[in-house]
Parts: sequence; structure tokens; C-alpha cells
Amino acid sequence: MKIDHVAIAVNNVDEAAKEYQQALGIKEVEFETIETEGVRVAILHLKDSRIELMEPTREDSPIKKFLTSRGEGLHHIAFETDGIEGEVTRMKGCGVRFLGEIRPGSRGTKVTFIHPKSLHGVLAELCSHSK
Amino acid sequence: MKIDHVAIAVNNVDEAAKEYQQALGIKEVEFETIETEGVRVAILHLKDSRIELMEPTREDSPIKKFLTSRGEGLHHIAFETDGIEGEVTRMKGCGVRFLGEIRPGSRGTKVTFIHPKSLHGVLAELCSHSK
Repeated sequence: MKIDHVAIAVNNVDEAAKEYQQALGIKEVEFETIETEGVRVAILHLKDSRIELMEPTREDSPIKKFLTSRGEGLHHIAFETDGIEGEVTRMKGCGVRFLGEIRPGSRGTKVTFIHPKSLHGVLAELCSHSK
Repeated sequence: MKIDHVAIAVNNVDEAAKEYQQALGIKEVEFETIETEGVRVAILHLKDSRIELMEPTREDSPIKKFLTSRGEGLHHIAFETDGIEGEVTRMKGCGVRFLGEIRPGSRGTKVTFIHPKSLHGVLAELCSHSK
């Protein structure tokens, strides 16, 4: 289990990406729109992990609701595992609650989300990258 | 620059550590009290990074204020750099604001905090480990 990325909700992903790049001295940035999640994402590459800045693309996006109620800031943490199906089964056996089933994420990943009630208020993504 | 740890504010660090260990399948955990910051911390080791669960040890702890206003959840992200002095100078040149000077952290680290206004609502620690 490792930290895959930390996701941050922002109002304007282009402006935020520029400021993060400058502040943290990060050269590589990629942009991606994930229509199913209602977000446009800036991916900032760090050593072995990433920062993902997320801007909502529509009014009913969960990120829009987060921004309205809490403002910009830390949204979730993502953990990478080699075998997501086995991990989810093991976690459910420990009583961990999930938000939805395992589903396709971006770039061939498989993802699911752990309910914040199972991790003391922290929304956590579980992801597996394709080999 | 890499993610050193993600810090989470909790009401009871012993209970939270047990639940995180079970949910994430983490065997190694260490506890530490940092009197200067007013926190007791559980350190959960992941591959190349850590989760730090923080419980306030006194009423005037910043973590106590965070828990009172926002409840348990993600508190800050820490970035590791080899040369903290040089990074702080570079960042200040870019207009990044800091909360206090570089100071000794736990276990021989040097730490400082970037103001959330400089990172779109995200409180970020900058740290250097001793060699």
C-alpha cells in the first residue's frame, strides 16, 4: 500500500496548476477531463506520487458541492494497491464501508472510494494501475 | 520533492490507529508526543511515505481548534526536500507565504509550514530529514 496521489479541490484548475508548479518547482503537468466524475484535473508529478488539482465541470459535480460548503482545500487521499479486488474483500471483512463498487478510473485504472466514516472523516480512494 | 506524509486530525489517536491499521493492513505503528506542537501522533508506515494521525494534548493545540471547527479529517500534507533552506528561499522569491521560520521537528527533522493562502486552501509542511 502506498500513497498514489493527494487530491485538492480548486475553483480554477489552470490558475491553481500554475501556482502549484511555481511554488513546488514542478515541471511536469498534465490535464485531463473525467466526464463521469464531473471534474477537470491537473496532474502534478512528484517522486513516486502525484498531486491532483480538481475543478468541477458541472453544477452537480461532488467537487462543486465540496467547494460550496468548505471552499478550496484537501479533498481526498488515494492509496495504490496491486490487487484492488482482494483488498476490497479484505477490507469489507474488517467492516470498512465503500462508496460504490470498483469501477474504471482514468488511464486504465480501477478505483473505488472508502466511506469517510470508516477512516475518521477522511475520504480515501483505492486504486490499481494497469500493468 | 516527494510526499513525506499526510496528517489527519483525530479525537483519539489510539482508537484511530487501530482502525487505520486494520483497514489499510498496516503492521508498523509508532507513537510520539510532540509537546511543542501540542499533539500525540501515531505514525503508520506505508511504502516511501507515512500517515500521521494527530490527537491534541491540550486545549490550546491548533489541532484542538481544527477538530472543534471542522471535525476529524485531513489536516495537512508534508513534502520532503533535501535542502529546506534553499527551497524556502526559492519559494519566498515566488511570493509563497510561510507560517513561522524553519524549526526543529521530531527525530532530527527541520520543518516549516506554507500558508494555506499560498496553496489554494491547503496547509503544507515542508520537511528535511537528517542524513
